[in-house]
Amino acid sequence: MRDFSRDHRWLSINTATVRAQWKLDGIIDECARRGIRAISPWRDQVAAVGLERIAAQVKSTGMELSGYCRGGMFPASTPEGRRLALDDNRRAVDEAKTLDAACLVLVVGGLPGALQGRAEHKDIAAARSDVQDGIAATLDYARKVGMPLAIEPLHPMYAGDRACVNTMEQALDLCDLLDPQRSGALGVAVDVYHVWWDPKLEEQIRRAGRERLLAFHVCDWLLPTRDLLNDRGMMGDGVIDIPRIRGWVEQAGFAGYSEVEIFSSENWWKRDGGEVLDTCIERHRSAV
Amino acid sequence: MRDFSRDHRWLSINTATVRAQWKLDGIIDECARRGIRAISPWRDQVAAVGLERIAAQVKSTGMELSGYCRGGMFPASTPEGRRLALDDNRRAVDEAKTLDAACLVLVVGGLPGALQGRAEHKDIAAARSDVQDGIAATLDYARKVGMPLAIEPLHPMYAGDRACVNTMEQALDLCDLLDPQRSGALGVAVDVYHVWWDPKLEEQIRRAGRERLLAFHVCDWLLPTRDLLNDRGMMGDGVIDIPRIRGWVEQAGFAGYSEVEIFSSENWWKRDGGEVLDTCIERHRSAV
Repeated sequence: MRDFSRDHRWLSINTATVRAQWKLDGIIDECARRGIRAISPWRDQVAAVGLERIAAQVKSTGMELSGYCRGGMFPASTPEGRRLALDDNRRAVDEAKTLDAACLVLVVGGLPGALQGRAEHKDIAAARSDVQDGIAATLDYARKVGMPLAIEPLHPMYAGDRACVNTMEQALDLCDLLDPQRSGALGVAVDVYHVWWDPKLEEQIRRAGRERLLAFHVCDWLLPTRDLLNDRGMMGDGVIDIPRIRGWVEQAGFAGYSEVEIFSSENWWKRDGGEVLDTCIERHRSAV
Repeated sequence: MRDFSRDHRWLSINTATVRAQWKLDGIIDECARRGIRAISPWRDQVAAVGLERIAAQVKSTGMELSGYCRGGMFPASTPEGRRLALDDNRRAVDEAKTLDAACLVLVVGGLPGALQGRAEHKDIAAARSDVQDGIAATLDYARKVGMPLAIEPLHPMYAGDRACVNTMEQALDLCDLLDPQRSGALGVAVDVYHVWWDPKLEEQIRRAGRERLLAFHVCDWLLPTRDLLNDRGMMGDGVIDIPRIRGWVEQAGFAGYSEVEIFSSENWWKRDGGEVLDTCIERHRSAV
């Protein structure tokens, strides 16, 4: 297992972590200034500055992209809705390629309409079927372009509105179905926040192996958790045994960045951005 | 599948649903008056009135107990702590027997100390080991007394502080380990709120079968969910396809009560208790 205690060369910052403090160009500069070598930006943050400008800045600073957030949101209750989702995913693949991201992260979506305030049906099996079809179609395109897709199983508390792929086992079953050759074109993003509770986690990380482990995300589960979406904790402040999980992931062959992704409306989004990044660096060394 | 649309003879009320409105003796009277044939009371509600008084009232009204809430909370960081938990579980078994409950529901516990505000360690595997030992010891006693134990897998969002058994598969693995003969002494409580998201739910309900399906609980998953503990919805107000899950449970051999268990600080606990019970009856017929 790599020693993270001496430096932060394997730290990546998911730019949602400081989205309240700076625009993306500012985030990149602040990261570069601190010797942070990688980020994972969100599409809306890229769009707010401009894809070409960000691509140029990424190149000039030598910043790497541990991932690009995000594709997915496949389920829809009409063929037109499903087609629009595929179009949008192709654009996300293209953007990821322009930015030379390591992978496009897929948050696959839940019940159609749920995130917009009203679920159009309650058939989660149908949503899962849409997801399978959507990944299959997007994978066809992503293979041609050469952009790996990372399915991110989300915590089951998001099954209704954000992602109906909720365990590593389920995500890997999809990978086996759509990429049985383990080509590297399809895999998973392991976010400790979403999967730490899973009694089959160690076994499924082993099953994933190097070819399927495309990203590793960290933050912490706070007790009590006060909000389902925006109360993620800084590494070390919660109850996830992060080093243990990182050990499993590395044992299985993963050797990439450890990406900090914290949504925190009451705490970290209210602080000075420099303080947040400095804390990420310190906790990467002491708690990951 | 039984037709619930014409009457509410298979409705049970978990008495937490109206805990803000009445003490338990009042709840029993209000249920009996409405032709509700079963309840599932909590230990603190029984204690507040007195076990003997409640036992007499249950008998005189002919009320059945679809379950008794609750045993469990096994993990501790010291041998003394684990022993105290076992003592408490034996008392819970005795109370359940006095009240002639169908089963004692086990909410197994999470990381030691977490529910009291400070987790004593982060080793969820150790907590799960405590749970296995605790159920094994409690089962020895419960078998002698003749009180079935129902492991309730809780939603993964409670893994840290309330229950580190979080899927049907995990609960049934424990059952197979501790009661391989499928004697009926150990099984599961299926609460749709906790398990609806699980891609393996149908398969695991089938696996459980009649001998292991000891209780069936209903409420609904609201979108958005505003509180991790106290924002459960009334059946029909959320996104769970309850009839589909009930169909699986009945297909597997379950023919007992459908128990309504709603924790709701901002909605149902603020309403008139009679209105809540009448709504439970109506939704039992229309949405379960």
